Amino acid sequence: MKKISEAVKEKPWIGWVLYFITIIVVFLIGLLGSSIIERRVEYTQIIQTVKPIADWEPRNEVWGENYPREYETYLKTGDTNFASKHGGSVMVDMLDRYPDLVILWAGYAFSRDYKQGRGHYYAVKDVVNTLRTGVPQPATCWTCKSTDVPRLINQMGVNEFYKKTWAELLNEVKNPIGCQDCHDPKTMNLRITRPALKEAFQRQGKDITQATHQEMRFLVCAQCHVEYYFKGKDEKYLTFPWDNGLTVENMERYYDSLGYTDWIHTISKAPMLKAQHPDFELYKFGIHAERQISCTDCHMPYKSEGGVKFTNHHVQSPLNNISNSCAICHRESEEELKKNVYDRQDKIFELSHLATTSLVKAHFEAKIAWEKGTTEEEMKSILNLIRQAQWRWDFVAASHGGSFHAPLECARILGNSILKAEEARTKLAELLSRKGVQLPVQIPDIATKEKAQLYIGLNIDSLKKTRPDFSSGFSKVNN
Amino acid sequence: MKKISEAVKEKPWIGWVLYFITIIVVFLIGLLGSSIIERRVEYTQIIQTVKPIADWEPRNEVWGENYPREYETYLKTGDTNFASKHGGSVMVDMLDRYPDLVILWAGYAFSRDYKQGRGHYYAVKDVVNTLRTGVPQPATCWTCKSTDVPRLINQMGVNEFYKKTWAELLNEVKNPIGCQDCHDPKTMNLRITRPALKEAFQRQGKDITQATHQEMRFLVCAQCHVEYYFKGKDEKYLTFPWDNGLTVENMERYYDSLGYTDWIHTISKAPMLKAQHPDFELYKFGIHAERQISCTDCHMPYKSEGGVKFTNHHVQSPLNNISNSCAICHRESEEELKKNVYDRQDKIFELSHLATTSLVKAHFEAKIAWEKGTTEEEMKSILNLIRQAQWRWDFVAASHGGSFHAPLECARILGNSILKAEEARTKLAELLSRKGVQLPVQIPDIATKEKAQLYIGLNIDSLKKTRPDFSSGFSKVNN
Repeated sequence: MKKISEAVKEKPWIGWVLYFITIIVVFLIGLLGSSIIERRVEYTQIIQTVKPIADWEPRNEVWGENYPREYETYLKTGDTNFASKHGGSVMVDMLDRYPDLVILWAGYAFSRDYKQGRGHYYAVKDVVNTLRTGVPQPATCWTCKSTDVPRLINQMGVNEFYKKTWAELLNEVKNPIGCQDCHDPKTMNLRITRPALKEAFQRQGKDITQATHQEMRFLVCAQCHVEYYFKGKDEKYLTFPWDNGLTVENMERYYDSLGYTDWIHTISKAPMLKAQHPDFELYKFGIHAERQISCTDCHMPYKSEGGVKFTNHHVQSPLNNISNSCAICHRESEEELKKNVYDRQDKIFELSHLATTSLVKAHFEAKIAWEKGTTEEEMKSILNLIRQAQWRWDFVAASHGGSFHAPLECARILGNSILKAEEARTKLAELLSRKGVQLPVQIPDIATKEKAQLYIGLNIDSLKKTRPDFSSGFSKVNN
Repeated sequence: MKKISEAVKEKPWIGWVLYFITIIVVFLIGLLGSSIIERRVEYTQIIQTVKPIADWEPRNEVWGENYPREYETYLKTGDTNFASKHGGSVMVDMLDRYPDLVILWAGYAFSRDYKQGRGHYYAVKDVVNTLRTGVPQPATCWTCKSTDVPRLINQMGVNEFYKKTWAELLNEVKNPIGCQDCHDPKTMNLRITRPALKEAFQRQGKDITQATHQEMRFLVCAQCHVEYYFKGKDEKYLTFPWDNGLTVENMERYYDSLGYTDWIHTISKAPMLKAQHPDFELYKFGIHAERQISCTDCHMPYKSEGGVKFTNHHVQSPLNNISNSCAICHRESEEELKKNVYDRQDKIFELSHLATTSLVKAHFEAKIAWEKGTTEEEMKSILNLIRQAQWRWDFVAASHGGSFHAPLECARILGNSILKAEEARTKLAELLSRKGVQLPVQIPDIATKEKAQLYIGLNIDSLKKTRPDFSSGFSKVNN
């Protein structure tokens, strides 16, 4: 300091230089401080402007007033323009693309209408519009569609809720899947609102309230993205068939022990099981689950805006958002990571196609066997093989993302499906030959959805005309 | 400094303390310097003591004089104590463990004797001792067994080498797989010594001399760990069936276009293909190849000894050495990584078992169809399905490590194998029923290797007695 003051005495301009440098430095520090304060203010505003949310508040827009970022990103699940541009959910008509599905589900509502699911935002609208709900359904079908469900369950009790008809609650269920399905309105903590998951845990001797926060980040999804059935002829009690474990064989053993059957196939007369969407179960057999990665980590990764880091509620395929999902752990290029996903999916698709083709043939061969006077006793083991084969195929086909979440488990299941379908066909070949039927049997023309539906006796135009008009039921939020 | 000298003047003992601290510090620096010099000396010794190695020098111990670390680790491939303790290659009798294999290979030398391969060190000894070489074989069979092969090929020309009989070269082939198979004796660079790989590249319009060092780290292995056949009735020219590509279907198309068949199955009369060990081809469809990880990275990872970092030539399963192989990239515990490997292998094993069972039945059903006077025309498509199914199964079963290297590709192949085996069985069921045969047909008792071999007409004791004594041929290195 002594030296500086001596230097300034000798050359006064040095003093001025130091003076202006100081001004600039202080100015920059000021800017930094302001930025810090501004970000804190922004964050504090969020905390301070929170208005209390009522228990069982179903309206997502009410929650959205407190949490605009989460709500705005949630609303993007309704952006079909975005989805179609990014290969997302645009209601591809799966029956149109794969008419064989009409045959596999003959006699079950899925043969009428089965489209690729859209975002959570459309949950109520799409279930109201599908031809599947033209057939009378229990209210249990609403369980996973709306934030009104926890409210109604609280109001009427879970048993009473399930026992209603689907149509009876049309005017009560307005708000699509949203905030309160997963969050506590007081604390915003993740919570389980659907009884079926809690009960499945209880029956396995596990206490779901002991789940860690990271476990909750997949368990809230597992409330709905699972295999389930409606237990009891009248109760229609939503139940997960997990008591023996989560593999496709474990659940089959569960259903078999109850003598449970979803429907009798109209072509083969086989007692069928329909797989729902065992997304959580298949995910559990994949490497990401093994590494404790939750659904949320990839489908709802963190996002930063202003000073705030929050969970992006635009639930979507991570492939639309690789830089914030896959790339958090994987250092490869987006192009390479996409290729890795598609390579896996292609192989599963190949095996799934083989199983489909075998199953279609088996249903038609069984039909001819019945026509030739084959007895129930002769058909029993064959029909059971068809049931087992299609259950395995459907378990993979109905799952969302299973071919990526657990490709090897899917391949294992499909290998078993192919074997069982072809074992049924071997037995059928024996039967049919003994009865003098020329093989291979003629498969009718089912090359399009329309032809296949006509073949199984569905008149879709008439179904559309005779179906009740439910549209008033969802005029509020969805449009 | 001024203050210190003033302090020492006041308290002279401070000077002594500083003096001794200086001595200790200088001593430690000396130790460090000595260690650095010693390591450099050690390394320089290696460089300086290198004696020239002659072209085509087959003796691994001669190379070992220059490269003791590489040689010592190479010798560990002969340590069966280590292998048995670590679940490694201990010549498990595969026919004993899976008697179905005897049936699948009926009429082919593998039904006589098929043991899990041991380390490279035993390559000559084990091929001399196996009952498979009791049957006359061409010299081509030596190609991948010995460092004497490049020497002999150089000496007699590759065409002449392949045309010899295996027995004729017994006294020439002494040194098991080793140094010169992969290294240039002048530069120690990796090099390709076996013509078949170079030729396969050429036919695909690729120049193998342009391969990068990292590519060479898997290409030297791909000289032998591949699918191959002996082209030409007399030429027996070692050829890789890669001209259409590396998938199981590509190679089948190649063999089919030549009308190539390895043997006629003695039970079903199907024109069979035997898969060799398509290790490289399957590896190419796995994620490690996708990430440019070479065979060497995991099976021969780097090791440090003294001041020298070198490649561990104890070629072995990475599971015996996880900390130096998997753990270089993967941060999970050894226990977890092992579980991940075994989980994959279990699923492939399950599918492989399903394919095996279907194939065994198909062979026996075909046999009965022949006995009932079925015509060649009727059997043609059935036998082709059996050929296709078993080729696919064998492609996976014969590969080393395919179930880990590319589990999903293995599952895809096995799913197709199961389908084709069962399609053959469906056609057989039709044929047999028309001929009044009661299904399912009776499968003979093939519950043990001995029973299965007896069934296909093999008298192993007599084979052992009548087989020439080749043992003098390998007395030098192996014992």
